[in-house]
Amino acid sequence: MRPCHAAIADWLKPLNIPTTIDAVGNLRAFYPGNDPAAPRLLIGSHLDTVPNAGVYDGMLGVVLAVALLEELGGKRLPFGIEIIGFSEEEGVRFGVPFIGSRALVGKLDEELLARRDAKGITVREAIRQFGLDDRRIEEAVIGEDALGYIEFHIEQGPVLEKAERQLGVVEAIVGQTRLALRFLGRANHAGTTPMDARNDALACAAEWMTGVETRAKENPGLAATVGSIEAKPGATNVIPGEVRLTLDVRHKHDETRSRFVHEFIGLAKEISGKRGISLQWNALLEQNAVALNPFLTDQIDKAIRNSGCEPYRMNSGAGHDAMILAERIPSAMIFLRSPGGISHDPSETVLQNDVARAIDCGVHLLTQLASSQEFLGRTCRA
Amino acid sequence: MRPCHAAIADWLKPLNIPTTIDAVGNLRAFYPGNDPAAPRLLIGSHLDTVPNAGVYDGMLGVVLAVALLEELGGKRLPFGIEIIGFSEEEGVRFGVPFIGSRALVGKLDEELLARRDAKGITVREAIRQFGLDDRRIEEAVIGEDALGYIEFHIEQGPVLEKAERQLGVVEAIVGQTRLALRFLGRANHAGTTPMDARNDALACAAEWMTGVETRAKENPGLAATVGSIEAKPGATNVIPGEVRLTLDVRHKHDETRSRFVHEFIGLAKEISGKRGISLQWNALLEQNAVALNPFLTDQIDKAIRNSGCEPYRMNSGAGHDAMILAERIPSAMIFLRSPGGISHDPSETVLQNDVARAIDCGVHLLTQLASSQEFLGRTCRA
Repeated sequence: MRPCHAAIADWLKPLNIPTTIDAVGNLRAFYPGNDPAAPRLLIGSHLDTVPNAGVYDGMLGVVLAVALLEELGGKRLPFGIEIIGFSEEEGVRFGVPFIGSRALVGKLDEELLARRDAKGITVREAIRQFGLDDRRIEEAVIGEDALGYIEFHIEQGPVLEKAERQLGVVEAIVGQTRLALRFLGRANHAGTTPMDARNDALACAAEWMTGVETRAKENPGLAATVGSIEAKPGATNVIPGEVRLTLDVRHKHDETRSRFVHEFIGLAKEISGKRGISLQWNALLEQNAVALNPFLTDQIDKAIRNSGCEPYRMNSGAGHDAMILAERIPSAMIFLRSPGGISHDPSETVLQNDVARAIDCGVHLLTQLASSQEFLGRTCRA
Repeated sequence: MRPCHAAIADWLKPLNIPTTIDAVGNLRAFYPGNDPAAPRLLIGSHLDTVPNAGVYDGMLGVVLAVALLEELGGKRLPFGIEIIGFSEEEGVRFGVPFIGSRALVGKLDEELLARRDAKGITVREAIRQFGLDDRRIEEAVIGEDALGYIEFHIEQGPVLEKAERQLGVVEAIVGQTRLALRFLGRANHAGTTPMDARNDALACAAEWMTGVETRAKENPGLAATVGSIEAKPGATNVIPGEVRLTLDVRHKHDETRSRFVHEFIGLAKEISGKRGISLQWNALLEQNAVALNPFLTDQIDKAIRNSGCEPYRMNSGAGHDAMILAERIPSAMIFLRSPGGISHDPSETVLQNDVARAIDCGVHLLTQLASSQEFLGRTCRA
């Protein structure tokens, strides 16, 4: 993360914009408005990513924010712009996403700070080990002068490409539930235990995974994913006695998502029950769908048109920092088309023309907002 | 392994039997016969085990061999007895079992010595790191004076308990195939990739595992086990792009086993094909069924009767060192009942009465063999 922060600081240096790292590791860079007392618009995305990822998820949104400041060529607006490069959006290390953005809305509680990574290091300890001061976390909270939050991000799905559009306006971010499940059977010898005398935790998990996938495929708009799995003891000639796995469930309607989560847990209970396997589960994340700000969304729609493009209104299947910021300030997102719909993979990419169009759209958006009394009259709302 | 070797050496010290460790880490202890030129009978089992195992698998057979020498009370027989505590029978570390016993029959080839563990250490390097001399591996090969091999072992299955017998005579060891399979799909975002646009390697593996289990359950006598699995990248919110797993297939008829192995590979091809996932597989082990020596088997049957027990003739679903020794010298096995049929688990156990009966049976066996001209007239055969 350090070389990443350093690279962004280097790009901002020619613009005379200093960067700081707040107490949860978010990069922050402020470009003042034409009046020292002017409010600020936040623009950003996240700087962390997943294992074996591509290079655009998150990062592109921060690079685009830098590009927008470059485009301004020193011109001052009636509002300042704060670039934010969020830390720990994906949740890989501690199993909980949005750690950086939660700090901005004051939702980094003790329970989250005490969460441990695979090596037993807590979030609080990780903050200290990075050289940051965990006593200053509250200083990361955004002030009353924050007008709103804009995030550019790759779509990470096939929708824009299929619709042949370069840019999308995100109207809502779908809700998601993440569960950890543990199937506890009995380890035994793979050669001497007849098939009908087994309590095979992995065979049980496999039957359940197949059931979950089948149900999800039957219900368009529903996404259910088992992303990680561990079978113990993990030897070729031993029937697995224990399986731990995660389930990620998403749907734009909270009620539907909740109904399927219960159905999937019920299915796990049923399958493990008939196999003499005990089941444990707990929720790692429960995030309702979030509607983005209609005023900003309309402004983005207009800015895309002003840049000569037809906007595409859509929902986001992925969670984003904008979802967290939306709890406190008007927030909105612009999606860039993802070729092949590929993300979280090294072959993730973007088209250069789409990036140029996004910069153009961003310049139009800033110009529109600079002359909008409705926007400038806003103050921070809960 | 060092404290284990030391404990056995301590038990043999009062009997004045010195122990040595051969170049592949097998413990060897020789109790001479009544004539320095007398041939030798090998008695033993293995000292290694699986992760999170019980304490009897393997170890009990070595402890029983020590107990038999104690029972002799210094009495010399017309043959010597060599106790062997085999190394690396399970194959956990290098993915290949029977490394210790292979050395005794001269089958530890360069390919096996070059095999690497998870940390990249070869078998040869591991031998050196343990302080042994890999140039002396050939000295571990048994000589022309070896009359036969006897192995006591827990059954590790429910057959003897169900038949209400204490001891079993093993007539044959079933064959086994161990495969490594790799399902290669495409990692993608769990929230933005519709269910019908995925190449989910784990969902594919789950469907296949369920199919394999169903087929195995339909065919009594067939055992098919997926013991280890790894999904990459392994994050909650990423569709797995790659799954590696192992399949263990066993059946007493080699032809049937081979037929099902091909069927399971065919099923994997079919399921991965329809899901746009590429499949790779290779055999880690291909071991045909092995018949044990009829003369020794009959002698064990008689010894069990002489100890006041009804013998139970059966096949072994597990592979054993006796299977490897049988390639070169007459070999036989005695099974002790496994309560609950449990093995490869900390709750693995034996009944004290069954152990006492096994010692009694062993003493009868040694007495029978000591007066058998047929046995003493034997020489090493291929």
